[in-house]
Amino acid sequence: MSKPYVLGIDIGGTNTVFGIVDARGHVVSSDSIKTRKHSNFDDYVDELHTEVMRLLKLNDAEDKIQGIGIGAPNANYYTGMIDNGVNLPWGNNIALAEKVSRAFNGVPVAVTNDANAAAIGEMTYGAARGMKDFIMITLGTGVGSGIVINGQVVYGHDGFAGELGHVIIKRNNGRICGCGRTGCLEAYCSATGVARTAREFLEIRTDPSTLRDIDIDTITSKDVYDAAMAGDKLAKEIFEYTGKILGEAFADMVAFSSPQAIILFGGLSKSGDLLMRPLVDAMNASVMPIFRGKTKVILSELKESDAAVLGASALGWEAKYRAETSAPAPAVVMPAAEAPVGELS
Amino acid sequence: MSKPYVLGIDIGGTNTVFGIVDARGHVVSSDSIKTRKHSNFDDYVDELHTEVMRLLKLNDAEDKIQGIGIGAPNANYYTGMIDNGVNLPWGNNIALAEKVSRAFNGVPVAVTNDANAAAIGEMTYGAARGMKDFIMITLGTGVGSGIVINGQVVYGHDGFAGELGHVIIKRNNGRICGCGRTGCLEAYCSATGVARTAREFLEIRTDPSTLRDIDIDTITSKDVYDAAMAGDKLAKEIFEYTGKILGEAFADMVAFSSPQAIILFGGLSKSGDLLMRPLVDAMNASVMPIFRGKTKVILSELKESDAAVLGASALGWEAKYRAETSAPAPAVVMPAAEAPVGELS
Repeated sequence: MSKPYVLGIDIGGTNTVFGIVDARGHVVSSDSIKTRKHSNFDDYVDELHTEVMRLLKLNDAEDKIQGIGIGAPNANYYTGMIDNGVNLPWGNNIALAEKVSRAFNGVPVAVTNDANAAAIGEMTYGAARGMKDFIMITLGTGVGSGIVINGQVVYGHDGFAGELGHVIIKRNNGRICGCGRTGCLEAYCSATGVARTAREFLEIRTDPSTLRDIDIDTITSKDVYDAAMAGDKLAKEIFEYTGKILGEAFADMVAFSSPQAIILFGGLSKSGDLLMRPLVDAMNASVMPIFRGKTKVILSELKESDAAVLGASALGWEAKYRAETSAPAPAVVMPAAEAPVGELS
Repeated sequence: MSKPYVLGIDIGGTNTVFGIVDARGHVVSSDSIKTRKHSNFDDYVDELHTEVMRLLKLNDAEDKIQGIGIGAPNANYYTGMIDNGVNLPWGNNIALAEKVSRAFNGVPVAVTNDANAAAIGEMTYGAARGMKDFIMITLGTGVGSGIVINGQVVYGHDGFAGELGHVIIKRNNGRICGCGRTGCLEAYCSATGVARTAREFLEIRTDPSTLRDIDIDTITSKDVYDAAMAGDKLAKEIFEYTGKILGEAFADMVAFSSPQAIILFGGLSKSGDLLMRPLVDAMNASVMPIFRGKTKVILSELKESDAAVLGASALGWEAKYRAETSAPAPAVVMPAAEAPVGELS
């Protein structure tokens, strides 16, 4: 018999949020720990395990977890490792799936990066239900992407496919990007990109703006949004600039996989028409005639506070990787659903 | 019992080539007709049928065809139609699969565009055997692409995915493209694109070149190749320019699907190191660090004279669409292998 829950874990740069999720995408209960409290990964996993077990006990769910899904920066679906997880304190080549599965006595674990997790969450519980071809774009501190084709997440031959925040949208004199190159989409259309655009506009231009009342080095995309909503012309133009670049980049993505929809997620996606109108206009103007008007641009339908955990959890239903444990291990032939959970330490 | 052959049909702007192909990718026999002889599509299909039947009889293969695969510009895998087949004389919305299947008494037919057919051929019989993730780029009069992810051709939600010749590589002041937009990869890196680059270079620059001995309006990519091979500096720089643009575009494609290989096919791909060296250099310099050195750029292993037919034929093995025919039709429950072939007219 299938167990009724999965565990979703979202490892962010600041917090690690985890939740118990049922088959309908309802987060039964959730909690979090600080990601950076332990510089040693084993100590981190110990604390994660302790806190998760506490949550499971509270919900009488210790033996009801079918699998664990984890979303984390640069986590690799194929290897179960975090490679070059630049925002995380544990260095490279972290055996994420293996160590978490071992801590939980062999419960199957699947991992992927946060944007792929968001795409899976959207497909399982959100705006992409019933869609076989779509692209998830996360507009946060960076620009992430999760691509779904024929109903499957695109991992590529090495597990790292779907880095659409790092297509080059400015070939000459582009902005430096965190990835070490120049001109990446992320350097323009992330929350930080919007703040950079604001600084550029304010330095180069002379027209008045309420943004000039803010210390230029501390301006955030939220400041730009607030100013634009209050009618500031320069702030509005920053969103037009951002939306146009996004729309042009989306036109190239459509030429690749002709998705039914591009789904936006993350703080910046909530800018409403300020961003969406110039984005859709530029996309329609830029896309190949054969695709014109076919690909919708829509917003995520997942509640932001739940979305990361939901996305990760959705991966838990299909998790297969099991660490060998010293505790009585489930036989290899035993179906995943019968794996003992929560009998540990 | 499975029938031993499929029929591959490649509908080009000038010739329609068809061949009988066995399961090992051997073209048993092939022939061709002129694509533009009939402006009425039904007349074209009549002649195609007559000539194919003649070839089948010659090879004692009238009842040995399991399916028919057709590659044609803008042919849609989902609908079986040719939409906007600009290079073809029959107008829009041609019911290609239906009419061919009907002419052949209900033999199952599958259609796709020529670049997808090339990708399927490469996967079935060529350089991509055993690869699950690769991109086929055809460098001919235009730039076409066929994308394979998880072992499946990417058709997108509407059947038109994989138009990588029409990603924008020059956002401002780009060359006009046949698709109606500006700055497309195809306008720079097709055979015609190379000829355009030659004309641009010759007009803008003053340095000597043997290309100046040719009427500038008649220069072809072959002329540029010959001049470069003979040591002409300007001609070599045209290939460097072309290769650099291709390599930069490939870097963005890698960020999308992280393929194991990008496979080049078509006349221009045979330019050897003239094109390949600047291409691979630019790709390695442009690609995100996480992908560097991982995606191979290799040449098609299909013999060019056979490749188009082979690619189309590979689709024939999985063809499912059957037109209803007035002749005694195979029962719906009858397996595809038992469909009568060649009993018509």
